[in-house]
Amino acid sequence: MKVKVRVPSSTANLGPGFDIFGAALCLYNTFEAKYVPNAKKTTFIIKGEGKKTLDLGKKNLLWQSMQETFNVLKETKYNLNNLNITINNNIPLSGGLGSSSTAIVGGIMLANALCENKLDKSQIASLAIKIEGHPDNVIPAIFGGLCICSKDENENHGTVINLPIPKLKVILCVPSFELRTRRSRQILPKMVDINDVVFNMSRVALLAAAFCCADYSLLRQAMQDKLHQPYRGKMIPVMNEVLQAALNAKAFGAFLSGSGPTLAALCDKKDANNVQKTMKNVWAAESVSVKTYILDFDVKGATIII
Amino acid sequence: MKVKVRVPSSTANLGPGFDIFGAALCLYNTFEAKYVPNAKKTTFIIKGEGKKTLDLGKKNLLWQSMQETFNVLKETKYNLNNLNITINNNIPLSGGLGSSSTAIVGGIMLANALCENKLDKSQIASLAIKIEGHPDNVIPAIFGGLCICSKDENENHGTVINLPIPKLKVILCVPSFELRTRRSRQILPKMVDINDVVFNMSRVALLAAAFCCADYSLLRQAMQDKLHQPYRGKMIPVMNEVLQAALNAKAFGAFLSGSGPTLAALCDKKDANNVQKTMKNVWAAESVSVKTYILDFDVKGATIII
Repeated sequence: MKVKVRVPSSTANLGPGFDIFGAALCLYNTFEAKYVPNAKKTTFIIKGEGKKTLDLGKKNLLWQSMQETFNVLKETKYNLNNLNITINNNIPLSGGLGSSSTAIVGGIMLANALCENKLDKSQIASLAIKIEGHPDNVIPAIFGGLCICSKDENENHGTVINLPIPKLKVILCVPSFELRTRRSRQILPKMVDINDVVFNMSRVALLAAAFCCADYSLLRQAMQDKLHQPYRGKMIPVMNEVLQAALNAKAFGAFLSGSGPTLAALCDKKDANNVQKTMKNVWAAESVSVKTYILDFDVKGATIII
Repeated sequence: MKVKVRVPSSTANLGPGFDIFGAALCLYNTFEAKYVPNAKKTTFIIKGEGKKTLDLGKKNLLWQSMQETFNVLKETKYNLNNLNITINNNIPLSGGLGSSSTAIVGGIMLANALCENKLDKSQIASLAIKIEGHPDNVIPAIFGGLCICSKDENENHGTVINLPIPKLKVILCVPSFELRTRRSRQILPKMVDINDVVFNMSRVALLAAAFCCADYSLLRQAMQDKLHQPYRGKMIPVMNEVLQAALNAKAFGAFLSGSGPTLAALCDKKDANNVQKTMKNVWAAESVSVKTYILDFDVKGATIII
């Protein structure tokens, strides 16, 4: 018995949509589990990003998510003593591209596939949100596309809306330093001035309308934010300059991806190379090396491939 | 020289969209100004709502808005000594239906029409927002339809998006007591818990998507609010019960209109009478008499009719 799942990276927030908007992108991690009936101990192989740093035992997020799923399903045959796990990581760690969420979604889906797929996608989503705490990376990672995520009044997995996929390229600039999501979340204020709330809500409404109507000229204003980017920007050198450079190079909108430090822009295919180069150059002038990507939106979400 | 303008009522907020969403409705006030060259004093006639209570002089909002417009246009021929003004008010005062905004918009448009319409609609909007302070009633009153209003970063009139007009009826229940907008705004907290912000932003995104995609089944969740209705509801007896009754009677969504006390619901034409009756009955059981309306969305906005 062998199962393999492919899970897309994701970019969350998209400017003003803190903890709400998320989009799956065509850059993937894959996770494989092979059942070894008489094994005494699970083996872990990690290739690519994090191969030297990620935990190979019970602190590994994939492991934890599989275990949580086995617990939910009351599974006894498979456990984390009799599986060989192979992780192939293409998504930069701690970059704001949902790498952790791929491990959570991948772990749940591997365990679920071993257990005859007893959980449907909605149940997978609820469990993933429970483990992750926030919906805006795990939801697009599961369902693909561009999503509006909301919790219900009891903080459970609520409605997910898939918006039309923008006919745009996503430019990512991932700087060579990491930002821990937890730290990047701690610096945000718990209480927000009502004027900033109204500012962000108006942008969130514009953002939803811009995508629904494919009116990308709205994105420049619709991607403005006062809730998290001003605070996180203090930890990211020249963030505003890189975002402005992207807009100057004809990107429709530009934003901090998730909790950062990756910066992202949406643009026409014909402008993609120039936007990418322009963003990279601003950081290069500050001696920050960056890895860049030009990606499409992923539309399939997490997929069992074996 | 005589000019007459018709200005629609409006409902603002639509649940979570505090100071952002507004819709014009087919219930109108009209305002007329007649130039009397040798008059020494402006006469004011008010018919309908407020005929016994509204100020007939310099504290009248129509008067103030006309004067402000004459100032902006540096107009010297017409002034508030040589005009006969007739106001015909059909919109309940202090009900949360944008009655004040009709006076502001009406005043600007009357004065502007006397001065050869030197201001375009965008300039009229900027002036109206300056006088009113908030865009979500004056914008739909000017442009008609269902609008997303946003201020720019300098608090000026920003982008206005007209969403597709919902093919729904708007049910209004206007109770017989008034709530002063200013008081109803003062009770709102200046600082908001980030969890409530995320809650409302997710509903605002859903609301925009629901209207853009004409998916009215989303409205029940999309019209939930934690920013203003819980606070204003304390001043409005059985608010939650009336809103819930509307939903039980097959309304797609229900909300406090503007700063209240009017309660509103959106529903199919076939359910309109029943929703109206059900809402009214809840209040009747509390001995609150209500005036009710079944309205369409207005699509024209303020219109010069003579």
